[in-house]
Amino acid sequence: MIKVGIIGASGYTGAELCRILCNHPEIQITVATSRQYAGQPLSSIYPQLHKKVNLTFENLPIEKLCTKADFFFTAVPHKTAMNLVPQLLTAGKKVVDLSADFRIRDVAVYEDWYQPHSSAQLLEEAVYGLPELYRESIRQSCLVANPGCYPTSIILGLAPLLKDGAILPETIIADSKSGTTGAGRTAQTGTLFCEVHDGFKPYKVGRAHRHTPEIEQELIKLADKHFNITFTPHLLPISRGILSTVYAELVSGYDRKRIDELYMQQYDNEPFIRLLSEDTFPATQYVRGSNFCDISYKIDPVTNRIIVLSAIDNIVKGASGQAVQNMNIMCGFDETTGLEFSPLFP
Amino acid sequence: MIKVGIIGASGYTGAELCRILCNHPEIQITVATSRQYAGQPLSSIYPQLHKKVNLTFENLPIEKLCTKADFFFTAVPHKTAMNLVPQLLTAGKKVVDLSADFRIRDVAVYEDWYQPHSSAQLLEEAVYGLPELYRESIRQSCLVANPGCYPTSIILGLAPLLKDGAILPETIIADSKSGTTGAGRTAQTGTLFCEVHDGFKPYKVGRAHRHTPEIEQELIKLADKHFNITFTPHLLPISRGILSTVYAELVSGYDRKRIDELYMQQYDNEPFIRLLSEDTFPATQYVRGSNFCDISYKIDPVTNRIIVLSAIDNIVKGASGQAVQNMNIMCGFDETTGLEFSPLFP
Amino acid sequence: MIKVGIIGASGYTGAELCRILCNHPEIQITVATSRQYAGQPLSSIYPQLHKKVNLTFENLPIEKLCTKADFFFTAVPHKTAMNLVPQLLTAGKKVVDLSADFRIRDVAVYEDWYQPHSSAQLLEEAVYGLPELYRESIRQSCLVANPGCYPTSIILGLAPLLKDGAILPETIIADSKSGTTGAGRTAQTGTLFCEVHDGFKPYKVGRAHRHTPEIEQELIKLADKHFNITFTPHLLPISRGILSTVYAELVSGYDRKRIDELYMQQYDNEPFIRLLSEDTFPATQYVRGSNFCDISYKIDPVTNRIIVLSAIDNIVKGASGQAVQNMNIMCGFDETTGLEFSPLFP
Amino acid sequence: MIKVGIIGASGYTGAELCRILCNHPEIQITVATSRQYAGQPLSSIYPQLHKKVNLTFENLPIEKLCTKADFFFTAVPHKTAMNLVPQLLTAGKKVVDLSADFRIRDVAVYEDWYQPHSSAQLLEEAVYGLPELYRESIRQSCLVANPGCYPTSIILGLAPLLKDGAILPETIIADSKSGTTGAGRTAQTGTLFCEVHDGFKPYKVGRAHRHTPEIEQELIKLADKHFNITFTPHLLPISRGILSTVYAELVSGYDRKRIDELYMQQYDNEPFIRLLSEDTFPATQYVRGSNFCDISYKIDPVTNRIIVLSAIDNIVKGASGQAVQNMNIMCGFDETTGLEFSPLFP
Repeated sequence: MIKVGIIGASGYTGAELCRILCNHPEIQITVATSRQYAGQPLSSIYPQLHKKVNLTFENLPIEKLCTKADFFFTAVPHKTAMNLVPQLLTAGKKVVDLSADFRIRDVAVYEDWYQPHSSAQLLEEAVYGLPELYRESIRQSCLVANPGCYPTSIILGLAPLLKDGAILPETIIADSKSGTTGAGRTAQTGTLFCEVHDGFKPYKVGRAHRHTPEIEQELIKLADKHFNITFTPHLLPISRGILSTVYAELVSGYDRKRIDELYMQQYDNEPFIRLLSEDTFPATQYVRGSNFCDISYKIDPVTNRIIVLSAIDNIVKGASGQAVQNMNIMCGFDETTGLEFSPLFP
Repeated sequence: MIKVGIIGASGYTGAELCRILCNHPEIQITVATSRQYAGQPLSSIYPQLHKKVNLTFENLPIEKLCTKADFFFTAVPHKTAMNLVPQLLTAGKKVVDLSADFRIRDVAVYEDWYQPHSSAQLLEEAVYGLPELYRESIRQSCLVANPGCYPTSIILGLAPLLKDGAILPETIIADSKSGTTGAGRTAQTGTLFCEVHDGFKPYKVGRAHRHTPEIEQELIKLADKHFNITFTPHLLPISRGILSTVYAELVSGYDRKRIDELYMQQYDNEPFIRLLSEDTFPATQYVRGSNFCDISYKIDPVTNRIIVLSAIDNIVKGASGQAVQNMNIMCGFDETTGLEFSPLFP
Repeated sequence: MIKVGIIGASGYTGAELCRILCNHPEIQITVATSRQYAGQPLSSIYPQLHKKVNLTFENLPIEKLCTKADFFFTAVPHKTAMNLVPQLLTAGKKVVDLSADFRIRDVAVYEDWYQPHSSAQLLEEAVYGLPELYRESIRQSCLVANPGCYPTSIILGLAPLLKDGAILPETIIADSKSGTTGAGRTAQTGTLFCEVHDGFKPYKVGRAHRHTPEIEQELIKLADKHFNITFTPHLLPISRGILSTVYAELVSGYDRKRIDELYMQQYDNEPFIRLLSEDTFPATQYVRGSNFCDISYKIDPVTNRIIVLSAIDNIVKGASGQAVQNMNIMCGFDETTGLEFSPLFP
Repeated sequence: MIKVGIIGASGYTGAELCRILCNHPEIQITVATSRQYAGQPLSSIYPQLHKKVNLTFENLPIEKLCTKADFFFTAVPHKTAMNLVPQLLTAGKKVVDLSADFRIRDVAVYEDWYQPHSSAQLLEEAVYGLPELYRESIRQSCLVANPGCYPTSIILGLAPLLKDGAILPETIIADSKSGTTGAGRTAQTGTLFCEVHDGFKPYKVGRAHRHTPEIEQELIKLADKHFNITFTPHLLPISRGILSTVYAELVSGYDRKRIDELYMQQYDNEPFIRLLSEDTFPATQYVRGSNFCDISYKIDPVTNRIIVLSAIDNIVKGASGQAVQNMNIMCGFDETTGLEFSPLFP
């Protein structure tokens, strides 16, 4: 039984970690921190976890935290994470960091999109926690940078194509739509019910969203050449889910049969990837609450474009579920432990 | 490993049985029937169950069905159930019936609200499947009539009060609000997205809903005296969840402290009942996808009324989850097996 | 052309006043105030009003305001209103106040539920702005206290019954459900999209909501006797709409026919009341965006109770639309001017 | 006062025509047909129109219809329309047809995507009813083919760019998201509340949607050269609204300033086009219920792509509102008559 700590447990990804981990047979949550709610029972803030998680939020110095658990999830904002993680690692802890702080390899790129990095020395040792691509490195790592939600959906959708050179990477356009949990639990006018409900809007259009460099970094690695993409995020009036519709021009010689083989080869044994048939399209509601990533694609022979569709639950496979998947790998558990729950539909 | 059959697996309660049972460690779903979809993979109708349930819908005569499983859930409409169940029992199977056909003890009442009953002889042997009230009878039964969704929420909310005589039963008014899964998966104009979304309406007002006699039967049994209630159902623009707001006049001598004790006494050891504190009110979103029933109450001293609030997920504790809970009891499993999943919020 | 000012125009009721008034042929909005957004174009905060309302939010002292308009809507929080209104009246302006400050006749009751009243001297001259009950007084008044949203739905539903003594008033139970615009536009965790969406919850249960004394004041006046009611508000995952389900015991001698006559007599000529037939129930979606109040009722002969159902759009008939209706009366316009828009459904 | 008939008034676009026309000062709805509901009051099917539209659905032969009105909206399915319209025209009526039957110029293309055309002789005389492009032809026409909802949003977004040669047309990718009213009011499992709510999905991916040839026809006319586009529709869990995110490669020499001028030149005097500033993006909720089309765009200099965003209410500007706008032009009314209502937000 491994003792697990959640630093920053009061946000939606923190609560989701609790939901998942409270049924995980190999671990025990021993500490959950929150500055804002320190001293209050977790179930008073998250009534859904009443009778499931019997913990009180704490606000402890890092040394104290280190005595309480052996494995940590840091579910705090970027910048906060970069200051916490080094201390946890020094104390010999394993860490899955859900912030953006250790995802970008190139410190200059990070600093361009975020702010100065105080722990750049760790960037090389951190592993980008997409198990379908980096399982072996994750297994040996003490610091896993849990991928962003949009990047997870886009990278998983494109990986087989880019690795085999099936598309022209500079033609990639990713049109992504996300549920509102992605905006977090901070009170803001823009995410009030009445502002989001029964509506739909784009945001950070035109190379403005911070997930852009993260997506490009991983796609570039897969294609083994440099290029830029276009990525447009939109806000859906749903709580959970991302659907990415990704367009690219096909390289000649690639048809349905050959591409099917690429996807099968890459994902057939993956427990959390579900390849759908040609005319079954992914939908956020079919992955809701689960760690699945559903993928299908369609070729338009007239324009010679492939349209790849991928759906995840943004706070499960796009955050907390993937974080637990990484923990399972890092701890030598079966990768699906605690993650077998089915999607909740309807 | 017990072999389980689901008769009528293509409706929402059937799909929900699949969602729950596919992770149940003591059973295996061996057959799932659907006339409409016979021959099609279950996951083609319910894509969320892809990689979770590897079954094809079948349409088999009852004798064939009986060779395939030892325990059956009948998730078919009332009237259909009454003709199936006797054959299953004769073949020595155990049955949890999710229809209304075996819930009403008094055949005259049943026939008044539904239609002629072809298996009235079974009414005496059928047990009303509310484990919190009838656990021991359920354990010994071969036929459990799984309660209706509205009745579950109302009866569980009032049981401690009625058993102790704390309220005047003839003053009971139950104002209930249900999610749209309660209306089933049949294509109807009235439950189209555009008709329900961003709206709210009452229906079957004024002693018109068929759950009325079922609720009254159980409340009368608890109070040990005859009376009628007022029950008003409403349709919520949500998928899952029932919240019942129940009003009654308090008998003198009952205060917060004494009533707290009644609820504690009745429910403190119940794994699926969560008693909330005075100012924490149940909400459908906090039980979504779980088998919990959340209950709290408030006393208005000025009008001498008690307002009891209870929330369930109508297709879990109000249908398929409770059905599995009953199966667990009937089969000697731990009552919570396969039902430990947390509510999905947000 | 009357010049109209909106004080506190940045909240949802302020924006709704703009939506309605910008098409009103007899008036012109000449000033709209907001402390928070002073200096910004109204359409930058409310993009829906782009090309409809060409105003910039201002933050002006009251004397300045008085030079800009002849008629004012005060859409500010209670307590703020009681300090503004006297100055407007002194300057000879007519005012419809949308706050609670001038609704309660009895200053002791007001101070018990709100806070000390700085302008109690105006309580007698203020008219409760429910045109269906107080049209003549409104016509002659300079200060109209625009009713609360829940009170509007409940009082309109019960008025014909109480005036004729058709129900026992002390048995009244009002179970009301409101859309989330009722909670305003202030950023709060509790009204974030992810907290409200796909859920349903009661709040301020048990004589805790400030609309209780307002409802009782008006019902008592109608019944001409003192009594208390039970009122329970709930939060719906919709933007607009209140549905109130109101229960009461019938006095003997009142049947469907007689009660139909009471409603017809009271409301047949009312432009904004729609009496529905016995089996057509009001629904929030059928009044969405309109100034209508839909009413129907059902008698349960077994329990001798009447169930009255009424639906309004909480920010139209429950706030800004009713405010314009009051303005029309106070200014001698046709009462429906600018309010003829149909409900928006689906 | 012109007499107007609505043929096929029981669908959502028919109801929306009623909502709009019942407040139109220059016309009177004299007949509304429905096979399914013939003999029933319109307000019994659409309770929102109670007290607004006092009509009974009729099912009349075409000759009878022609005696009742001078101007007709045909809001029937394609194929039905092509058989009705010639008779109406022969009888000297003016017609706005909301089906697809007269939108496609090339009968071969129509027959390829739909079915054999029985009135191909009318294709030349029919005018594509997009007033912003074809106002003068509409004015002189007796048969206007009202544009599809997706085409309206995409064509209006791209017109200024294509007319000036600012983009490479063969790089156009239109990723569109539509509310569920677009799927109509026919009872279908796929559009039940529980299937659509809290979810998001693509459909007819890869040159499969029938709006593709309509969009291409109009874009080709604007660009004055042949090409194909990629168009992907998605289903939003909202009732009303389309947002199209359209990508294309910029021709060198076009920057923000020059493109702003193109849009201004094209749309500055258009009453229903609202050009938003660079960082204000269109959203479906800001046009809800109105006849506005909101447009903005962003340039990504790194990839040299322009991202054009446009939002409409799919059953107003995308159907019934545009149909009334066309009627206004055809009848010589002010183009905005009856269409001045503001968007309904929140």
